[in-house]
Amino acid sequence: MNNALLDQRLQRALGHTFVRPDLLTQALTHRSFGALNNERLEFLGDSVLNCSVARALYDAFPDLPEGGLSRLRANLVRQETLAEIATNLRLGDSLRLGEGELKSGGFRRPSILADALESLFGAVFLDAGFEAAQRVVRGLFDPLVARIDPKASGKDPKTELQELLQARRLPLPEYRLVGTEGEAHDQDFIVECVLAKPALRTRGVGKSRRAAEQEAARQACAQVRK
Amino acid sequence: MNNALLDQRLQRALGHTFVRPDLLTQALTHRSFGALNNERLEFLGDSVLNCSVARALYDAFPDLPEGGLSRLRANLVRQETLAEIATNLRLGDSLRLGEGELKSGGFRRPSILADALESLFGAVFLDAGFEAAQRVVRGLFDPLVARIDPKASGKDPKTELQELLQARRLPLPEYRLVGTEGEAHDQDFIVECVLAKPALRTRGVGKSRRAAEQEAARQACAQVRK
Repeated sequence: MNNALLDQRLQRALGHTFVRPDLLTQALTHRSFGALNNERLEFLGDSVLNCSVARALYDAFPDLPEGGLSRLRANLVRQETLAEIATNLRLGDSLRLGEGELKSGGFRRPSILADALESLFGAVFLDAGFEAAQRVVRGLFDPLVARIDPKASGKDPKTELQELLQARRLPLPEYRLVGTEGEAHDQDFIVECVLAKPALRTRGVGKSRRAAEQEAARQACAQVRK
Repeated sequence: MNNALLDQRLQRALGHTFVRPDLLTQALTHRSFGALNNERLEFLGDSVLNCSVARALYDAFPDLPEGGLSRLRANLVRQETLAEIATNLRLGDSLRLGEGELKSGGFRRPSILADALESLFGAVFLDAGFEAAQRVVRGLFDPLVARIDPKASGKDPKTELQELLQARRLPLPEYRLVGTEGEAHDQDFIVECVLAKPALRTRGVGKSRRAAEQEAARQACAQVRK
């Protein structure tokens, strides 16, 4: 598909047609491509995202205290979630990357995808105002907000596992890095979560050690709850 | 002055008249006063503030990279600045505090003032939308943005002092806590910044050790630059 068609498809998926297509182009331009890139737009878009998601959660959970809202938002706006949404939008196809990034598969890298998505929110804000940007964000995030179990209250899996074990007076888990895969710029970390009681080992893979730990904890939670 | 008059004065100072005065009241209610307080509004207002200031800086400094914008924003939205603005608005007069907080002078505490100001931004967002809230924020912050020296690039005084001394190959400063004043819940910290060369001692007072250090560093910077 050529660039114009890709841009059209992306704008349809976002539900916003740019008055200034140069802003769309800039939002899709990684710093490896040139000086007029998306870094400043990302700064702006990050705050648009945080504000729009804050409002969505404020309205959706009228009884949740501030701490719960903060936790839920941290879960929703983390890099993994943003990269997943960007992948669903096939944002990678539209990115403008420098030679080196292209060769090393930058269009699949979660950090690059997440940053570009935030930049798009910033670009819509500049293009048509906050309400328009909020509509785009809500279009993408409202389905995720609707799926939140308010009882889980947005705790991350490591916290959840720890509290689950403490409630049963069981020893706390240990996390061990058991290996890494891939080259330095695009590594996968493999972490084992080890429980003494119930005797259990689960594994998580992730783009950071922390992400791998969370994934391992998520699986351990599921096992312990069975 | 009675409450109704105080509320009117505050709305005039903010440049926003509430359609739903209950939101104004809630924004001014500290958690010590009751269950329907401003904590959730503060969560919302914090994101409105960050987004509005991000936009103000984005527009005001078209050539500043993302890192510089982040630093400038961190300086503008910190508690000290918010408390100062709240004090100028005489927000303390309108606060609803519990018995204990009233007695201990909570209406002068920077954290309570800063939180209430953020809550007001959240309340305006709910009352009349983002554009209205952004107008209120910009009304208060644009004068501060206009005063920013882009060359100082938003570095905090301690960082600035360190870089100033390093550039001249001079020894780094030492910070010493020389005392505290006031009761535990409302302390002032007094910190001395000591330079070996040029031989110099400056003092800073602040509500936290860090704030006092920054103030001492600010004065040292001014002296060294002379």
